[in-house]
Amino acid sequence: MSHIARLLITCPDRPGIVSAVTTFLYTHGANIIDLDQHSTDPEGGTFFLRLEFHAPVLDMSRTALETAFGEVVGERFGMDWRLSYADDVKTVAVLASRQDHCLMELLWRYSRKELPCRIAAVISNHPDVQKSVESFGAPFFHVPVTDGDMEKAEATMLEIVRDADLVVLARYMRVLSGNFVSAFPDRIINIHHSFLPAFVGADPYRQAHDKGVKLIGATAHYVTAELDAGPIIEQDTARVNHRFGVADLKTTGSDLERTVLARAVTWHLQDRVIVHGNKTVVFR
Amino acid sequence: MSHIARLLITCPDRPGIVSAVTTFLYTHGANIIDLDQHSTDPEGGTFFLRLEFHAPVLDMSRTALETAFGEVVGERFGMDWRLSYADDVKTVAVLASRQDHCLMELLWRYSRKELPCRIAAVISNHPDVQKSVESFGAPFFHVPVTDGDMEKAEATMLEIVRDADLVVLARYMRVLSGNFVSAFPDRIINIHHSFLPAFVGADPYRQAHDKGVKLIGATAHYVTAELDAGPIIEQDTARVNHRFGVADLKTTGSDLERTVLARAVTWHLQDRVIVHGNKTVVFR
Amino acid sequence: MSHIARLLITCPDRPGIVSAVTTFLYTHGANIIDLDQHSTDPEGGTFFLRLEFHAPVLDMSRTALETAFGEVVGERFGMDWRLSYADDVKTVAVLASRQDHCLMELLWRYSRKELPCRIAAVISNHPDVQKSVESFGAPFFHVPVTDGDMEKAEATMLEIVRDADLVVLARYMRVLSGNFVSAFPDRIINIHHSFLPAFVGADPYRQAHDKGVKLIGATAHYVTAELDAGPIIEQDTARVNHRFGVADLKTTGSDLERTVLARAVTWHLQDRVIVHGNKTVVFR
Amino acid sequence: MSHIARLLITCPDRPGIVSAVTTFLYTHGANIIDLDQHSTDPEGGTFFLRLEFHAPVLDMSRTALETAFGEVVGERFGMDWRLSYADDVKTVAVLASRQDHCLMELLWRYSRKELPCRIAAVISNHPDVQKSVESFGAPFFHVPVTDGDMEKAEATMLEIVRDADLVVLARYMRVLSGNFVSAFPDRIINIHHSFLPAFVGADPYRQAHDKGVKLIGATAHYVTAELDAGPIIEQDTARVNHRFGVADLKTTGSDLERTVLARAVTWHLQDRVIVHGNKTVVFR
Repeated sequence: MSHIARLLITCPDRPGIVSAVTTFLYTHGANIIDLDQHSTDPEGGTFFLRLEFHAPVLDMSRTALETAFGEVVGERFGMDWRLSYADDVKTVAVLASRQDHCLMELLWRYSRKELPCRIAAVISNHPDVQKSVESFGAPFFHVPVTDGDMEKAEATMLEIVRDADLVVLARYMRVLSGNFVSAFPDRIINIHHSFLPAFVGADPYRQAHDKGVKLIGATAHYVTAELDAGPIIEQDTARVNHRFGVADLKTTGSDLERTVLARAVTWHLQDRVIVHGNKTVVFR
Repeated sequence: MSHIARLLITCPDRPGIVSAVTTFLYTHGANIIDLDQHSTDPEGGTFFLRLEFHAPVLDMSRTALETAFGEVVGERFGMDWRLSYADDVKTVAVLASRQDHCLMELLWRYSRKELPCRIAAVISNHPDVQKSVESFGAPFFHVPVTDGDMEKAEATMLEIVRDADLVVLARYMRVLSGNFVSAFPDRIINIHHSFLPAFVGADPYRQAHDKGVKLIGATAHYVTAELDAGPIIEQDTARVNHRFGVADLKTTGSDLERTVLARAVTWHLQDRVIVHGNKTVVFR
Repeated sequence: MSHIARLLITCPDRPGIVSAVTTFLYTHGANIIDLDQHSTDPEGGTFFLRLEFHAPVLDMSRTALETAFGEVVGERFGMDWRLSYADDVKTVAVLASRQDHCLMELLWRYSRKELPCRIAAVISNHPDVQKSVESFGAPFFHVPVTDGDMEKAEATMLEIVRDADLVVLARYMRVLSGNFVSAFPDRIINIHHSFLPAFVGADPYRQAHDKGVKLIGATAHYVTAELDAGPIIEQDTARVNHRFGVADLKTTGSDLERTVLARAVTWHLQDRVIVHGNKTVVFR
Repeated sequence: MSHIARLLITCPDRPGIVSAVTTFLYTHGANIIDLDQHSTDPEGGTFFLRLEFHAPVLDMSRTALETAFGEVVGERFGMDWRLSYADDVKTVAVLASRQDHCLMELLWRYSRKELPCRIAAVISNHPDVQKSVESFGAPFFHVPVTDGDMEKAEATMLEIVRDADLVVLARYMRVLSGNFVSAFPDRIINIHHSFLPAFVGADPYRQAHDKGVKLIGATAHYVTAELDAGPIIEQDTARVNHRFGVADLKTTGSDLERTVLARAVTWHLQDRVIVHGNKTVVFR
C-alpha cells in the first residue's frame, strides 16, 4: 500500500499527543508531508490536528493500521479521529436551481481537476441546465417541486444522493427539511449570499441595499436544522457603493459566491475542515 | 475672493440640472475642479451632486453668490444644497474612553495635515490620555461619568463641544442620549467594531468569536437615536481564523477601526458625504 | 431616435467645458445619466470627461448631432472626442491558446449578458476548445502556427478579425507582430500573469517563485509594439506564501487573471477607458 | 525554569524528524503549543519547522537542554536549529530619517505592548523627531551625515547599535555600506515603498505614477549587500487610480508601509521567519 492519507484528530489537550501520533506513524513507515495543529487552550482546552502523510511501504493493511492507531494512540488520548485516503475519491451531489453560476463554477473547476472528487449527481428543480451539466460529464437529474410538495421531492433526491460523501447546495433555493439535513451531518455545504450573521433569510442583496452597506459578502457553511446558522467554513466580502442597485449587488455578489463556495468545497474534499460545536477549524 | 469651494446638492432628478449648475458657476468666474453625480433613477429618482470649484476672481461676495445660486438654480430645481469653503476650517471634537487607538490615529493624521480641520477638543471619561493628546497640540478635557450620572456628563460635554462642526466618537464607550444626538444631526460619527448590521450592541468581538466568523469588520456611521443603526459611511473587513482568540480579534480589529474611522472622518471633512434617509452617498 | 449614448472627451483644461457640453446636450433633449471628469491640473493640465446620456426624443439625427457638437463645442475647446451608442453593439474577437480559463470566463459572462458585445470570433492555435466555444454560440477558428510561420498565421487571423472593434488576447501565447498590433490601436487587450512592471516576459509565475514574493498579480493592458509595456487598464493581487509551488501559483493566478481580464474587457466595452500617452483613465 | 520557548529548524527532509523532535521535548517535560512545518519536497527537499512550547517544569537547565537536543536530535538530522526564549526580550534599534510615519507606528505599537522587544535606540539623521521618540520612552540619537561622510556616520551608529538583535530601517533614506550590513546578517529589516521587484531604487512612487499602475505596494525585506534585493518578508498592495498624483500615492502608500513593516518586525520578533537562500519561510 502506498499513497497519501490524512488524519484528523480532536481531543482534550494534554502533553504528548504530537509525539505519540508522529512516533506511531514513523514507526509504521509513514512520512509526514504536512502537519498543522491548534489548541483552544494548552491547559484544559481542545486539541485539533490535521496531518497528511505519505506511506511508500506501509507495514500493514489499512484496517490493521487503523485498528492499531485506535488502540495505541486514539484510546490513550480519548481522541475523536478519522483517517481518509486521497485514493478514496469522494462522491459529491450538487443541488441547484435556476441561478447556475455556483454550479457552473464547480463543474468548471471539476473539469480542470481542481476538485478532488467525483460528481455523481447534479439535481435541479429546473430543467434548464441539463445540457451544460452533461457537457461536463456529470449526470443530471430534474427533480421539480410539484405543488409545493417538498416532501416528495426530498424523497426522490434522497434516493439519488443516498451514497454521496458530500452534498453541495449551489444556490438551491428550497429549504431542506430537518429530516434530509440529518441524513448528512456536517456533510451538506450551502452558500449564503451575505456576510452571515448579517442578512439571514430571503433576498439578502435587497436587505443589503436597504441598509446601505459598503461591502457585500458571501458565506459558505455547513447546513444544520436552523436556517443559515450552521458552522461557517469560509466568507469573503467585496466593496460596493451607492451606485450599486440590487441587480448590481447580485452581479458582484455572484462572483463572490462562486469563489467562496469553491474554496469551502475544496477544503472539505481535502479533509481540511473539522467541525467543533457551531464553529469550524479550517487547516489551510 | 479666491479659493476652493464645494457644492453639495440633493434634488428630484430631471433634465437640465448639471447644465444649469455648471453654467451658473462658469458665468460667475468659477472653474470646476471635480464633479461627481449620482441618480437613483433618471426618471422620478433622486439626484445627488458634488462639485468642487476654484474661483480665482469670483465676481461677487460669498453671500451674494449663495443668494444668487439659491434664486437662479436652487429654487428652480427644488434643491437641498449647501456650499462650503475649504478656507472655513471645520472644528472637530473627539470623545474617547480608555481605548485610545482610534483617538491616536486621528491625532496623528491631524499632525501630518491629513485631516483638514481644527481639533478644538478631546474629551475622555478617563484622564489617562491627557499628556498624549496635549503633545499633539489639542486641548484635553476630562469629563468623568460620576455615579453613572450620564446626564450631568453630557451637559458638561455639550458646553465644550457646542460649536463643533463634527463630533467624533473614537471608541467612546458610553451611549449618548437622544438629546445629545439631536444637537448634531448627521454630524456625529461613531466607529463600531463590527461589520454592521452583524453584531449590534456590546462586545462585538466576543459575539464574532462565538459565531466563528472568518472575517471581522469595522463600521463608521452617523449616530442616530437608534443604537448602531445610523447611516453607514464606511466599512472594511480583515481575515481571521480559528487561531484568533477574542484578544487577537481585538488587536486585529483595532487596525481596522482606526483605518475605517480615519477614512470616514476625512471624507466628511472634505464634504464628500450626503446623507439621504438611512443611507449615505459618498463621492470619492 | 432614443437610447443611451456615451461621450468621451480629452482636451486641454480650461474654464467652461462642462457648462458648454452639458448645455449643448440639454438643449438638444438629452438627459445626463452619469458624468465623471478628471483633470491632471486645473491650470494647463489635460481634461478628461465621460458622460452617459439618455435621449428619449433627440431633436436631430445622430449625424447631425455629431456635426453640431463638433462645430459648437468640440472645435471651441480643441477636443479629442467620440460618441458611441449602446445600441451599436461592439464586435469582439478573442485569441486563445491551450490555457482556456480566461477564454471560458469571457464566454461564460457573455452568456450571462454581462459583456455588452457580440463575440464574432474565437481563434486558437490549438483545436481543443472548439466544442466548448461553440456550445456558447461563438464561431471558432483554428489557426495553427505552422513551422513557426507566425506571419502566415497573422495574415489568416487578420482576415477573420478585420472588422472587430476589440481584440482580446485571452492567454494567447504567441507574440503578435508590430504590423498586427498597429491595425488595432488601443483596441487589443492582453492579460499578463504578473503585477507589471514586475516579471515582464516569459514564465512570470516561475520568476515570482524564484523571487519569493508574498503576493502574485495579474495585469490587463492595451497591447503596443513594446512587449508587456502598453497602458495598464486593471491589476489585482492575491496573497501567497512559501507553501505555494509554481503550480499552485498558476492555479491561484488563474482566478486573478480571469477576474482582471473580465473587468478590463467590460470597462472597455462600456466606453469607460481613455488612453492618454502610456497610461489610462478608467471612469468607474 | 518555566515559560515559552521557540524552536526553529532547517534541515534536509527525511522521515522521522517530527517524531524525534516532539518525543525529545515531551520526554523533557515540554508541552507543544504550536507547531508548523514545511517541506519543499518530501523526497530530497528541505524541511522547515517552527515549534512553540511551554515548559512548566523543564527537567534541566537551558544549556543542558540545548546541548542534549543538539546531540540527540540536531546532529542526527543535520539540522540548522536555534532555540529562543520569550523571556529573552530582543533589543531593537530603529534608524529613521525625516519621514516619521513608520517610526511612529512602531513606537506606538511598542507602547501598546504589541511588539515583544525593547527598543534600545532610535537613530535619525534629522533631529526633528527627538521629542516624539522620547515621549514613548525610547532613547534618541541624532547622527547626521556630515558632508556626505557616510563612513563616519556608520561608525557612530555601529557604536550605538552594536548589541541590537534587530535593526529596523524605518524609511531611513541613506544606503548602508556592505560593511554595516554584514554586521547584522538576516537581522536588518527595511521597508521599501513599492511592490518589489517593481520599482527598485529611488522615488518608487514617482516611478509608479509614470507607469500608471492601478495598485501600489510596499515590501518589507531583509537587507543584503544588493540594494532592494534581500529576502522578502511581507508585501501588500492598495488600489489607486488616475486621480492619484504622486503626493496622493505617497499618502496612501504611507499607510501600507507602516502596516507592512509592523507585520514584518512583529513576525521577526516572534521568531516566525526563517531565511533560506534569497527567500523566507514565514510561519504565521
